[in-house]
Amino acid sequence: MVDSEKSIIRRIRQLSGERGVARVPLGIGDDAAVLRVPSGHEVLVTTDFSLENVHFRRAWHPPESVGHRCLARGLSDIAAMGGQPFAAFLSLALPAKLPQKWVDAFLRGLLTLAKQHAVTLAGGDMAQSPGLRSSAKVLVDIVVVGSAPRGKSLRRSGAKPGDAIYVTGQLGASALALEALFAQPKKKLHPNKHPAHFYPQPRLAIGRYLREHRLASSMIDLSDGLSTDLHHICEESGVGAEVVAEFIPRADGGTLEQALHGGEDYELLFTAPRDRKIPRRIAGIAVTRIGQIKNGRTRVLLRDGLQKRALPPGGWEHFKNARRSS
Amino acid sequence: MVDSEKSIIRRIRQLSGERGVARVPLGIGDDAAVLRVPSGHEVLVTTDFSLENVHFRRAWHPPESVGHRCLARGLSDIAAMGGQPFAAFLSLALPAKLPQKWVDAFLRGLLTLAKQHAVTLAGGDMAQSPGLRSSAKVLVDIVVVGSAPRGKSLRRSGAKPGDAIYVTGQLGASALALEALFAQPKKKLHPNKHPAHFYPQPRLAIGRYLREHRLASSMIDLSDGLSTDLHHICEESGVGAEVVAEFIPRADGGTLEQALHGGEDYELLFTAPRDRKIPRRIAGIAVTRIGQIKNGRTRVLLRDGLQKRALPPGGWEHFKNARRSS
Repeated sequence: MVDSEKSIIRRIRQLSGERGVARVPLGIGDDAAVLRVPSGHEVLVTTDFSLENVHFRRAWHPPESVGHRCLARGLSDIAAMGGQPFAAFLSLALPAKLPQKWVDAFLRGLLTLAKQHAVTLAGGDMAQSPGLRSSAKVLVDIVVVGSAPRGKSLRRSGAKPGDAIYVTGQLGASALALEALFAQPKKKLHPNKHPAHFYPQPRLAIGRYLREHRLASSMIDLSDGLSTDLHHICEESGVGAEVVAEFIPRADGGTLEQALHGGEDYELLFTAPRDRKIPRRIAGIAVTRIGQIKNGRTRVLLRDGLQKRALPPGGWEHFKNARRSS
Repeated sequence: MVDSEKSIIRRIRQLSGERGVARVPLGIGDDAAVLRVPSGHEVLVTTDFSLENVHFRRAWHPPESVGHRCLARGLSDIAAMGGQPFAAFLSLALPAKLPQKWVDAFLRGLLTLAKQHAVTLAGGDMAQSPGLRSSAKVLVDIVVVGSAPRGKSLRRSGAKPGDAIYVTGQLGASALALEALFAQPKKKLHPNKHPAHFYPQPRLAIGRYLREHRLASSMIDLSDGLSTDLHHICEESGVGAEVVAEFIPRADGGTLEQALHGGEDYELLFTAPRDRKIPRRIAGIAVTRIGQIKNGRTRVLLRDGLQKRALPPGGWEHFKNARRSS
């Protein structure tokens, strides 16, 4: 592996074209990377798997999309803290027979998104993927490191009864694309027609805006789906919630179920005290009020017309389990 | 996965017993962990895969050893920078049929080592491992975060012609155990009889001592084997090296080949100006001078009796390829 590891390090250095930047004085090629954060800032770290046939399929997702999506997951976590990402680490295990072209396109997708957000690829690890021939899968683990002023990061735990609940963008677009893929597994979707699924945009500017203006009391990114992620906020804050079906912004052509339970939208879900004025758009993206935080630990309700029903977490499991069967 | 993820987070919180420690004000359970480094310090980050059948085998390595070894790899990287580790992140993909007992013992091995070095398990990710039944493997990626005073981390790139070359401990013990396992794959080795292989000890105290006393000009940890890792130092420093076979400290019962090319010893390899006085033992571990840095980019020679021969990198590949065939 030494030679191919060396060649991929060389490739990353070429493709990223960044070395010795101020916040990453020592990047790829030593025992550890050296990072610097401005004084008075704290460090944010998040790590996310992207595993073939669990998080993506090579038959469905072009390599550029796989590279983009695996970094977007981590960037979105930093966005949800109101932080500024600046370094990423890529652990990559590849099947022996994987074409070099696939790897190059994967790296291109990842590094293009990294560049857009001034994130340096500062290290990682390479290995051969275990398993024989077709059972060997592409395995990716991505670490994103960011920073935020000390004590100012937005957490899941700050929601208070009475707070309003907001989401950015539209929900369910990624689930809509995924359901189309499952319905006709042999038919490819055109990534340009489903950008929310193939090239989701982490809401970093919105996260920072909310932190800088002290608008949000809690925040999370929508990776598992609204029903699950709202439950996370309620659990960590020790509160309940009520959301209104007709307020939930749906993706074009999407269903309420997809908007409620579909994952991987990478929009932001946040709460804010009722008297806080929240702009209708931030950084060009719509911000929509969808409900209110209530008393009653982790009791999440959906008001749909005249009916009220429980909104249990775990909607996204449907897709996950389906994907797992592969 | 939500439920099992929640249960493993709960388990980790119980087992680690650490929350809200000063340097990790926010750990497992939010979008990202929040870490603090002392002012005037820089952040060190390293990430390492431990993949079943590539880095370990379930038939050979008890789960406690797997947990210990995957964290030891990362700690050893921080040791090689002269740093102080304080947080770890565990990304863990598990086969659906893996017994909970295995996971518990794995976590115990990992967290026991973490506790010994005051490292907080601050986050990570959970997923189901891809592949059907027996083709699904245990996949681990571990991130270790440490710190060191700004500009003082020890790098691979500081070796100068004339510098002396040193190693800590004895070399080849891990390869010796691995060769025994390959020779008789059905026969289990007793971990207590091969602690260097099953429970390697990262040389953190030595790394810090060398940094604090400004003794070393360059350093790396021996994960790939002396021949390969010395080559890394030469490459990054733009120098050559000559080591003397009879000076290389061999493991009990080990061969010269194992000491030269065997990996996963997790000892430290460092260089120091010739006039720098290096203690014969540091933190109870022997420190041995084995050769000298020379001019001539990446030309590494071995003096063996009256003969001199090239010492090419990549010895460890032998073991890696053998392991890969599984």
